[in-house]
Amino acid sequence: MKKISLLGATGSVGLQTVDILLSHQESFKLVAFSAGRNIEKTREIINQLQPDLVSVQDEKDALELKKDYPNIHFTYGTNGLVEVATHPDSTVLVNAVLGSVGLESTLAAIRMGKTIAIANKETLVTAGHLVMAEAKKYNAPILPVDSEHSAIYQSMNGENPKNIERLILTASGGSFRDKTREELKHVTVKDALNHPNWSMGAKITIDSATMMNKGLEVIEAHVLFDMPFDKIDVLLHKESIIHSLVEYHDTSVIAQLGTPDMRVPIQYALSYPDRLPLHNGHRLNLAQIGQLHFKEVDFDRFRALALAYEAGRTGGSILTAMNAANEAAVALFLQEKITFLQIEEIIENIMHSHNNVQTPDLETILAVDSETRKKVVSMVK
Amino acid sequence: MKKISLLGATGSVGLQTVDILLSHQESFKLVAFSAGRNIEKTREIINQLQPDLVSVQDEKDALELKKDYPNIHFTYGTNGLVEVATHPDSTVLVNAVLGSVGLESTLAAIRMGKTIAIANKETLVTAGHLVMAEAKKYNAPILPVDSEHSAIYQSMNGENPKNIERLILTASGGSFRDKTREELKHVTVKDALNHPNWSMGAKITIDSATMMNKGLEVIEAHVLFDMPFDKIDVLLHKESIIHSLVEYHDTSVIAQLGTPDMRVPIQYALSYPDRLPLHNGHRLNLAQIGQLHFKEVDFDRFRALALAYEAGRTGGSILTAMNAANEAAVALFLQEKITFLQIEEIIENIMHSHNNVQTPDLETILAVDSETRKKVVSMVK
Repeated sequence: MKKISLLGATGSVGLQTVDILLSHQESFKLVAFSAGRNIEKTREIINQLQPDLVSVQDEKDALELKKDYPNIHFTYGTNGLVEVATHPDSTVLVNAVLGSVGLESTLAAIRMGKTIAIANKETLVTAGHLVMAEAKKYNAPILPVDSEHSAIYQSMNGENPKNIERLILTASGGSFRDKTREELKHVTVKDALNHPNWSMGAKITIDSATMMNKGLEVIEAHVLFDMPFDKIDVLLHKESIIHSLVEYHDTSVIAQLGTPDMRVPIQYALSYPDRLPLHNGHRLNLAQIGQLHFKEVDFDRFRALALAYEAGRTGGSILTAMNAANEAAVALFLQEKITFLQIEEIIENIMHSHNNVQTPDLETILAVDSETRKKVVSMVK
Repeated sequence: MKKISLLGATGSVGLQTVDILLSHQESFKLVAFSAGRNIEKTREIINQLQPDLVSVQDEKDALELKKDYPNIHFTYGTNGLVEVATHPDSTVLVNAVLGSVGLESTLAAIRMGKTIAIANKETLVTAGHLVMAEAKKYNAPILPVDSEHSAIYQSMNGENPKNIERLILTASGGSFRDKTREELKHVTVKDALNHPNWSMGAKITIDSATMMNKGLEVIEAHVLFDMPFDKIDVLLHKESIIHSLVEYHDTSVIAQLGTPDMRVPIQYALSYPDRLPLHNGHRLNLAQIGQLHFKEVDFDRFRALALAYEAGRTGGSILTAMNAANEAAVALFLQEKITFLQIEEIIENIMHSHNNVQTPDLETILAVDSETRKKVVSMVK
């Protein structure tokens, strides 16, 4: 029985994690989770999985919940996240919060030697050097939850990493993969939220359309697998059936495939090194699919991906600036305050005016993050 | 430094094995090999790799060679194969002979606990129960050399076999994949030898065209991976890029891909669990390939594959009868004594008139093999 702490239980990945925990109560026990302001869902999860500790965003919600569940501990805010992450009973922390908010609590869990199942790519992008150094020091395994990194992790199973020649991340190309840059000028928020293969949250769906999502994943792969950027490729594969591939120096390529279902990588991170049956899973039928397509990425067309490689190769606080600029710009786009192409313009602008710090500490990262967000907002006014 | 015995050095797989041994002399040493009547090639391999023991088919060739290489031991015939396989210095035996001739020598090597890299599928098809029982008893690892089984083996790396839902063997469809049965009536030996993806020996190329090769592979997979036939599927995939796949019970599918090059699975069997760089290997470029195609197998079109499943499910000496009938019929086709479609007619005829023995011993297997060959020849006269 693995005991689990879950950050971000009511988000897209969080709810799918809850689904897995529900379907494998013989294997997993949720001891603590955090949620934001979705108190209805929070109550539902409490009823279903009876955790010991729950953290919400606001104090008033915590007090309200306490009345109905006197035997459960409630807490709130940023400290609440740390309490959930460091719950003494859990051995696995699932970090499924969005943005950089999960960083401090994740570091706290790492220092307790917990296994971290990380769905929060921003943590690895902005503070990858801190996270991996602490993980090494405290012997805390970091397991990817992203489907691409899970695919790579699965394709490295039993292999010696020194034999790896190249990691190949597949990319669907997002909602606008068949549009030219000219056509991108006029796309709407609604168009952008219509992802062809995956059902995900709004922010990641926009990141998918700009391909900044793939850019963050390239950086995440660099951090997680200690691989130079020259050995990380992106391959357009519109069906999202091959989730990623690892090429070895004997020219052998190992890949993980499946129907697009985020529960597969989430469950794999929880069950690793074992696998468990997937409840209501859809088996892959390649004969029915008939064809898989592959295409080289055009870095002029997908400018945000080129910027991510640039930031990755530069390293340092520019990664935080890039990520914060992207988060802020995507929020503005979702509020219909900027156009789709302005997202990458803003990122480029921020990156090229950034004073880079090579090995930023947590304080610097948080400062750059907050300054960048302000700067982006001021750019638009 | 791994010391290697090689049966069938001058055949297609044998020569590619020699190529690998030549390119990794820091890792491998050929101590003994067998060849048939190709004495020129035999001399070449002796000069290149300086083995301790060499076996050829005929005594006169052995005596002739001894004059030129007084420091090397020479032997010949069936006993010679056993001597090569059981050379006291080797820890790995590569069985790359064709047909059932390698069976006794392979069993002898297994009883010494050697690792067996097996390219000879007939040995596993006809005597799989004996080979695997002895391998278990003497703790001798059996590593596949066939590209499909190597792909499965690589896709099972680090995994728990109990989590496997299904093995999926890919099949190019062979030289005649786009022909109807009507069109197959008039194909020639020359047409059949023109395989679209792999460069192989004549017998296996014909087996590829009838898909008996895939049938033998299905049975081989059943034997090697202890998997019921209901969990072994065949998938048409004309590009031969995905060499085979393993589906797990979490719906995850792991696959091994690469440009078609038999040296990859051969070298993997030799280097396992490590990998070595492949000399002059061609890296896979999926973007350049563009598309991969998949199609269900039509068992009416590929009758030989249906017969192989039938024999596999029945089990026993019918497997030897089927294999011997196929070998004899292919030989007759290559001699232009029968038509292409008569190959499967002969196999079906032999199978359906066979008196099955459920767990045949070696003697029975050899008897059924020899009787069946005679029967096939008599059927054609």
